[in-house]
Amino acid sequence: MTVDGEPQSVLWQDGCIVAVDQVALPHHERRIRITRVDQLIATVSRLAIRGAPSLAAAGALGVLLSAHSRRTPFDAAGIRADAGRLAAARPTAVNLRWAVDRMLAVLDGGYPALEREADAILGEIVTANAALASATADFVCAATARHRLRVLTHCNTGWLATLRIGTALGAVLRLHERGRLERVYCTETRPLLQGARLTCWELDRAEVPHALLVDSAAAAVMARGAIDCVIVGADRIAANRDTANKVGTLALAIAARHHGIPFVVAAPTSTIDEATPSGAGIPIEHRYAEEVTHFGLELTAPRRTEVENPAFDVTPGELVSAVITEHGVYRPGG
Amino acid sequence: MTVDGEPQSVLWQDGCIVAVDQVALPHHERRIRITRVDQLIATVSRLAIRGAPSLAAAGALGVLLSAHSRRTPFDAAGIRADAGRLAAARPTAVNLRWAVDRMLAVLDGGYPALEREADAILGEIVTANAALASATADFVCAATARHRLRVLTHCNTGWLATLRIGTALGAVLRLHERGRLERVYCTETRPLLQGARLTCWELDRAEVPHALLVDSAAAAVMARGAIDCVIVGADRIAANRDTANKVGTLALAIAARHHGIPFVVAAPTSTIDEATPSGAGIPIEHRYAEEVTHFGLELTAPRRTEVENPAFDVTPGELVSAVITEHGVYRPGG
Repeated sequence: MTVDGEPQSVLWQDGCIVAVDQVALPHHERRIRITRVDQLIATVSRLAIRGAPSLAAAGALGVLLSAHSRRTPFDAAGIRADAGRLAAARPTAVNLRWAVDRMLAVLDGGYPALEREADAILGEIVTANAALASATADFVCAATARHRLRVLTHCNTGWLATLRIGTALGAVLRLHERGRLERVYCTETRPLLQGARLTCWELDRAEVPHALLVDSAAAAVMARGAIDCVIVGADRIAANRDTANKVGTLALAIAARHHGIPFVVAAPTSTIDEATPSGAGIPIEHRYAEEVTHFGLELTAPRRTEVENPAFDVTPGELVSAVITEHGVYRPGG
Repeated sequence: MTVDGEPQSVLWQDGCIVAVDQVALPHHERRIRITRVDQLIATVSRLAIRGAPSLAAAGALGVLLSAHSRRTPFDAAGIRADAGRLAAARPTAVNLRWAVDRMLAVLDGGYPALEREADAILGEIVTANAALASATADFVCAATARHRLRVLTHCNTGWLATLRIGTALGAVLRLHERGRLERVYCTETRPLLQGARLTCWELDRAEVPHALLVDSAAAAVMARGAIDCVIVGADRIAANRDTANKVGTLALAIAARHHGIPFVVAAPTSTIDEATPSGAGIPIEHRYAEEVTHFGLELTAPRRTEVENPAFDVTPGELVSAVITEHGVYRPGG
């Protein structure tokens, strides 16, 4: 699925949303055609569309989809109701609600105004990703003495998660293009293996040297001096730089600090939630126990075992070397 | 499988080794009857018998098994060759070689001497586990202000891994018996899920309150103040207390230190390798890529993706609050 010759994970086509099915990868390269808002909510909930910037695109196009089906007569109340349900589908990533709110702000302009706004939002996502990926690559090159870097990343922040280009993984690709990447270490990212299934798939197709690790092995790779920097994305960044991201990010940040390794967050400004002063105010989505107790249909733990399955954790701002957006290094209140 | 009314994971029966098949759990409670040393080596290599003290039992009984088949005429050279191959089957856990070496030291006494020595080794393992489990429970009760403790553990250190009673998990059971345990958090322990498959299975049967986490979520649970102490086992402890244990232990130790949580290693003296001055000298077993790229028969990463799959990592002694053996707190050179 490409736009202007580049892969794009979510797009608008003939009155529908078309998206890469991220649950089917890496086995099946399948598209989903989404014609109703409830179908989009289900698609987002089961993580077939995921990743903060891709969720922003889904938010914008979801409101457009609602308006498309409610355009004659234009049913603003119905669109608002759809938008409210859509925005609540994933509570942690602020980008979904950010895009929905932007769409609702132009609702008075009717369908044409929504069409223009969705187009603008998708364009801005792509532009922001390109800028922040380059800025992040610049930052880590300046922050490390080594010429060819060994980068550790977590979860998936490539074009699947970000519509196009990638945030943290976009920076990795920029390093690769500049001849400054030795290798990227990808954590598999339990429970849903976005690192193994999606990041390795993107890197394999792009022919970027990479190695896969279980999440808990990252500290040992740092300890033997094989990591020059850690680059991750974010789902929501509080005003003080506390960063909610895929569960496991906190452990990586603590281990990076312990080993003196720069820990960089690459995310668009739309991920920064200035209205939330600190990480304590970020809602953390807890997901199904079955994600942990089963693999596919196979049970791998006793039936009565309780599970804690937070999808995200919060890394305190003081463990983050830099948050880098399309405007460069983010400074709270700056 | 029980001895003296208590479950035991490895035992000698009618000239064979009988063991619980730890790969088949939690779905199938199956025994393996081992009649040849090569079969034992294969069993140990595929982790159907695993855990440092259980490996010591396998080492002792493996030499006895070799001697049983080579007893008339008594073929000391053949037994030595079998023993050498067996001791090399798992390089990190020192207990396997420790037991094999003890058996070889009495080889001149013939089959009866080997029978007595194997019996002594298994008895010592059980006695040591009982003593160190109690000593560890005493230590964490003294080290934490809270009455009912929330303990985090990693991998499996219960009776499956330790022949009988358990080391770190033995201490957890002692806390439970004393009414001092609120809950134990079990990491699933990728890639082979010994936490989910084995520890939760043991705790479920013992009716101990427990919750399962993906490995990378442990830091977030610590951050919210829900963990009072971490207790783990060990595969080899260098003279300076650097501790090789299941991969992921290092990340837990770093996160525990960051959050000011006691991090305790519970292991018998036979796990301490005084001949190895520091962790740098401990060989780390790297296992098959397929453990990470597949789940059962299902591929979950691209075929060309490289994998790093260290089975163990080394936690520096300075991150360990205490190493507790059957003799109490271990002090290097003490």
